[in-house]
Amino acid sequence: MIDQLIDRIKKTEAPIVVGLDPMLDYIPEHILKKAFDEYGETPKGAAEAIWQYNKALVDAICDLVPAVKPQIAMYEQFGIEGLVAFDKTVKYCRQKGLIVIGDIKRGDIGSTSAAYATGHLGKVQIGSHSYAGFDEDFATVNPYLGSDGVKPFIDVCRQEKKGIFVLVKTSNPSSGEFQDRPVDGTPLYEVVGRKVAEWGEELMGSTYSYVGAVVGATYPEMGKVLRKIMPRTYILVPGYGAQGGKGKDLAVFFNKDGLGAIVNSSRGIIAAWKKDEYRDRFSPEAFADAARAAVLDMKEDINSAIL
Amino acid sequence: MIDQLIDRIKKTEAPIVVGLDPMLDYIPEHILKKAFDEYGETPKGAAEAIWQYNKALVDAICDLVPAVKPQIAMYEQFGIEGLVAFDKTVKYCRQKGLIVIGDIKRGDIGSTSAAYATGHLGKVQIGSHSYAGFDEDFATVNPYLGSDGVKPFIDVCRQEKKGIFVLVKTSNPSSGEFQDRPVDGTPLYEVVGRKVAEWGEELMGSTYSYVGAVVGATYPEMGKVLRKIMPRTYILVPGYGAQGGKGKDLAVFFNKDGLGAIVNSSRGIIAAWKKDEYRDRFSPEAFADAARAAVLDMKEDINSAIL
Repeated sequence: MIDQLIDRIKKTEAPIVVGLDPMLDYIPEHILKKAFDEYGETPKGAAEAIWQYNKALVDAICDLVPAVKPQIAMYEQFGIEGLVAFDKTVKYCRQKGLIVIGDIKRGDIGSTSAAYATGHLGKVQIGSHSYAGFDEDFATVNPYLGSDGVKPFIDVCRQEKKGIFVLVKTSNPSSGEFQDRPVDGTPLYEVVGRKVAEWGEELMGSTYSYVGAVVGATYPEMGKVLRKIMPRTYILVPGYGAQGGKGKDLAVFFNKDGLGAIVNSSRGIIAAWKKDEYRDRFSPEAFADAARAAVLDMKEDINSAIL
Repeated sequence: MIDQLIDRIKKTEAPIVVGLDPMLDYIPEHILKKAFDEYGETPKGAAEAIWQYNKALVDAICDLVPAVKPQIAMYEQFGIEGLVAFDKTVKYCRQKGLIVIGDIKRGDIGSTSAAYATGHLGKVQIGSHSYAGFDEDFATVNPYLGSDGVKPFIDVCRQEKKGIFVLVKTSNPSSGEFQDRPVDGTPLYEVVGRKVAEWGEELMGSTYSYVGAVVGATYPEMGKVLRKIMPRTYILVPGYGAQGGKGKDLAVFFNKDGLGAIVNSSRGIIAAWKKDEYRDRFSPEAFADAARAAVLDMKEDINSAIL
């Protein structure tokens, strides 16, 4: 799957992943109204609005980018109905040829991590049959529990030819509270980064590993160090745009081959229609066209920094 | 909610939480057969079996223990149908007067953590209505992303009078890989423990905080240190029984008031009917009675160590 991801990045010339992290206030009134008219102001109504919104966004951008990253929390907050919308979104994106990175940040002890890995990347055995649960292509994983929390994901990835991105240095302001603390003089994120590189050796694609890392765009200096520590690790870079990361900061996350990183933008793309830059050109009804324009602008910004 | 938890611990004289972590091979044949006959060997069939199994277990133990801890991964692996069984289980346990600790180990950056907190402990706003998603009483939280990943949970806890348990030192063999690394000479789990105590000050019940900690029974020496660092923090202690923790190891997790800790057992209770100690006395059909006997034995083992 890492090879497929790289192929599609090359084909689209866009090392970009669109974060499908819908908030109700990103969704234009006409979609909300239709969904609420049909199902009421209920979780089912909200889930229907999210699904219709996602579907239009995906149709508008699926030829431009290699991948999408739905953030499961934004669906989980609506309970079961929200997760039904997540499931439909994952399936639809895969049908449209997009690679789906489930931003689930799961991580637990051995058998429990195995259950998460099964539910999101693998197949669960029921009697003599097996079934895929949420069936993403990649998942994000929290490393705090150590190797025996991560290895079950790697085992499932080996079986299913899927991949993970392990949290190393996250994009949020207080990520340094634990991640930057010096462990024998080395920041914890570097210790985790070395471990990710080591795990990655176990499951290599042709040039990069199936085991990737998450490193926030908001910390380019640390990205530079981590890029060197993990030369064959694909880096998923959140924090571009709304969180403050800029194209020129991103060059350090890439290798000399122009590969090695994929940059996420969520709000900056999917809620572009609400931003000053796009509001004059796009009506709320044209929210998906605004997202397409924002993807093209992001592509130019990033490629100008790395090419 | 922490005060309610303590009240119920006192009433039941059992600082015990039963982990509702169903695996299909824990479930007796007669339940599986009935569910599969009705819905086939499908996720719906598996979910029905899990639900019937949980229901019988809960009926058998609800007067003996203050709380249950369903591990969401064990449900999530079956996709939507599994999560429907999780949701039904949570609701049923609460109806039966049990406090529900959702073992979800979520944690993300600010707005995303807020969505998880909303979905599991709070209420989501949809138009002019608000709805609870999964509606547990407590949730477990992963601290790797720092304060701005944890604080949104605390905010929701303040609003809803609910609580969290933050992972400090987990029970698994490789938990030391990152958690034990010395940060300026202090192990990371101590650094996290101090932070948990600090967060806890912000939201106190009458004697203990709404912000608890997870510390594995398998590391009693570390539990002793953490008990001192976090005197007003309730400690959720996994790893008793199947993972190797024993009653006599657990005294260090409690304060002199006989409170301050609640010990989890999952497999040791819910799959007691498969264990040598209980197999002779209980048929597979009497699995719930075996679970009840195992709770009583665990209660005696723990109380003999702490009283």
